[in-house]
Amino acid sequence: MKVLGIEHIGIALKSKKDKYFWDILLGDTDKKIDLVKDQGVKTEIYDTKKGKVEFLDALDKNSVVAKFLEKRGPGIHHISFEVENLENAIDEMHQKGIDTVTESFTIGAEGFKIIFVHPRCTGGILVELTQR
Amino acid sequence: MKVLGIEHIGIALKSKKDKYFWDILLGDTDKKIDLVKDQGVKTEIYDTKKGKVEFLDALDKNSVVAKFLEKRGPGIHHISFEVENLENAIDEMHQKGIDTVTESFTIGAEGFKIIFVHPRCTGGILVELTQR
Repeated sequence: MKVLGIEHIGIALKSKKDKYFWDILLGDTDKKIDLVKDQGVKTEIYDTKKGKVEFLDALDKNSVVAKFLEKRGPGIHHISFEVENLENAIDEMHQKGIDTVTESFTIGAEGFKIIFVHPRCTGGILVELTQR
Repeated sequence: MKVLGIEHIGIALKSKKDKYFWDILLGDTDKKIDLVKDQGVKTEIYDTKKGKVEFLDALDKNSVVAKFLEKRGPGIHHISFEVENLENAIDEMHQKGIDTVTESFTIGAEGFKIIFVHPRCTGGILVELTQR
């Protein structure tokens, strides 16, 4: 597959205190809010123009983000790589025995096509592949 | 401070099996090896041209990477952001009560100036700031 770059790093925080450093780091960076309602997630996306930082908030207690925070505490939820062609990438992974969390792509923040690679195939890291 | 982008994501893996997916993702990406001897770390750096992925290997059992793997298992070790001026960034953080792991910068992979922000100030994430 052809990877085009790091699209974003997805971070889940628990408190305003955790955000203090990030506001200093990213304070001058373009920011937008996007909802991924079927996942129960609010995203706050800072675009450095060389990779985004996406802060994930739970919209309700059944949200994947609420479950992550309960189980793991604050930290990096996932990392996302942009690929040239997501459907080709999915086919290649399945042919090579790499498991994905869903069988085919879904629509994530900013309307991008996304799929998550199963952490058992990546060394425990939740990796998203995306195509704009 | 002025952030210029995501410089890299630093990953520590335990086995060749963990690397299989990453070789598929990054197989066509420019790669180089660099040693950070005073940290006991070998880095294998893949440059997507929009953020690098840096795989960290321990050169000996006292390496920070060996200790990380023993304590946490494989996963994301740190994320690195490029800033315009690292010394100014360090001054700003110290003035604003953000702790850094060392008092001043050190030299990391590729000869870049680096400093680590203490995870207690970032929501548990080891964040590196760097200047080329």
